[in-house]
Amino acid sequence: MTSVQAAGRTVFFVSDGTGITAETLGTSVLAQFDSLKFRHRRLPFIDSPDKADEAKAVIEEQGRVDGKPPLVFSTLVNSTIGARIRLAKAVHLDLFATFVEPLERELGVKSNHTIGRFHNATDSEAYKNRIEAINFSLAHDDGQATSNLDQADVILIGVSRSGKTPTSLYLSMQYGLKVANYPLIPEDFERDAMPSAIRPHMEKLFGLTIDPIRLSDIRNERRPGSRYATLENCRYEVGAAETMMRREGVHWLSTTTKSIEEIATTILNTLALAR
Amino acid sequence: MTSVQAAGRTVFFVSDGTGITAETLGTSVLAQFDSLKFRHRRLPFIDSPDKADEAKAVIEEQGRVDGKPPLVFSTLVNSTIGARIRLAKAVHLDLFATFVEPLERELGVKSNHTIGRFHNATDSEAYKNRIEAINFSLAHDDGQATSNLDQADVILIGVSRSGKTPTSLYLSMQYGLKVANYPLIPEDFERDAMPSAIRPHMEKLFGLTIDPIRLSDIRNERRPGSRYATLENCRYEVGAAETMMRREGVHWLSTTTKSIEEIATTILNTLALAR
Repeated sequence: MTSVQAAGRTVFFVSDGTGITAETLGTSVLAQFDSLKFRHRRLPFIDSPDKADEAKAVIEEQGRVDGKPPLVFSTLVNSTIGARIRLAKAVHLDLFATFVEPLERELGVKSNHTIGRFHNATDSEAYKNRIEAINFSLAHDDGQATSNLDQADVILIGVSRSGKTPTSLYLSMQYGLKVANYPLIPEDFERDAMPSAIRPHMEKLFGLTIDPIRLSDIRNERRPGSRYATLENCRYEVGAAETMMRREGVHWLSTTTKSIEEIATTILNTLALAR
Repeated sequence: MTSVQAAGRTVFFVSDGTGITAETLGTSVLAQFDSLKFRHRRLPFIDSPDKADEAKAVIEEQGRVDGKPPLVFSTLVNSTIGARIRLAKAVHLDLFATFVEPLERELGVKSNHTIGRFHNATDSEAYKNRIEAINFSLAHDDGQATSNLDQADVILIGVSRSGKTPTSLYLSMQYGLKVANYPLIPEDFERDAMPSAIRPHMEKLFGLTIDPIRLSDIRNERRPGSRYATLENCRYEVGAAETMMRREGVHWLSTTTKSIEEIATTILNTLALAR
């Protein structure tokens, strides 16, 4: 924690844990100031007074180099450690002090001032489910395995390179869902029928589609100049897939301008509404 | 957005985007009150006054059913929409109002009050890198591909079932890093040498190890009663792997009690320090 870089303003994400919460919030907040550039520095696992003092020194030294006080987004459960960090000359945005204290009053209970609340995270049922979900999604990527599809929470379908794999992995990693994905291929369009392996699971299907121009770009990066990547073929596959999904009453969305997070959230929302 | 469930207190995560930031922060804050149970409800994509009014009605109806005002964590860039949501009888924890306004004063600039700031997220270089990183990590899972290891940002090593795959996918998904993973197997220990495919890339290696008792449990779930899963064999493999990593000067950590996020953060931190 000793290296220091020059120029601009620095934002620190300080936590007794991973700092992911502080960084997620801080990044969203700073996205509202997109005319400014910030240097991001993560200071995770600050879980002792000594580490707090070391972090304070790093923050102050950076402020001297920058000539501007750093921004410090922090999630520190222990109030002693929080107090030491706040001694640093900086703009402090303390997530827990800001929200936990008002909630203690509202809820009429004290919060648990424990450090390392994630420890033994691996013992929990939720953790096991998550690992199991990731393994399931990997094993059922791209139609690799058609066994155990009855255990799937969701089965994503769509043409090759429509975004099925990253979406499947994101849903299993973040939400512990078992997500299979199954490609729709020209043979399915010629037969004009959903692949037989997924027919028994129509209520679990969710379709991904994509603008043919973008699909052609993506496929050309992988297999340049192939027939598979031509705009003509992409138009045909996307059109046929959309026609089939529409006819079969499958919920679907276009991934063209959406981030993985937006796609995943839309799927969760649609399935919750549908059930 | 019309179904309502009974009893307990409800926490809403309301956003004009996915609601992931609101949910990440809200979940961390509420983890400080682990004696209480909350029902979580996500209201994403609230990006018009009509949807805001609909969300307000859902929140109020839930409050009536619960007999307690819901908690509402929100990230709403548009202040008109925020104001409509705040009319709901609830405990409002408004992340942007709380942090963006003080930052406008500190930074001396106005924030951009745009809705849908994530749109065309897929056009950005960062997005392409992320998808490429996920594909790389998938292709280089479990030593499947040994080509292009020079393009890897990190190569995770460790015995089978030490946590390499979920960690690789998490690092690529969340940080856009190209992460290969390579198993250390009994043949490597008999030869008493690192696998030849990864020897040219020693500076990229990071090792994962695990408590042999836990490893035996995990392996027994997959291959019950196998020699592979015996505590004796797990002790041998873990001991041999740790000896080899220590001798070769590879950074490593034990995944036994750590979440995927903690493992990933530790790796990022160690590599940043080492470089």
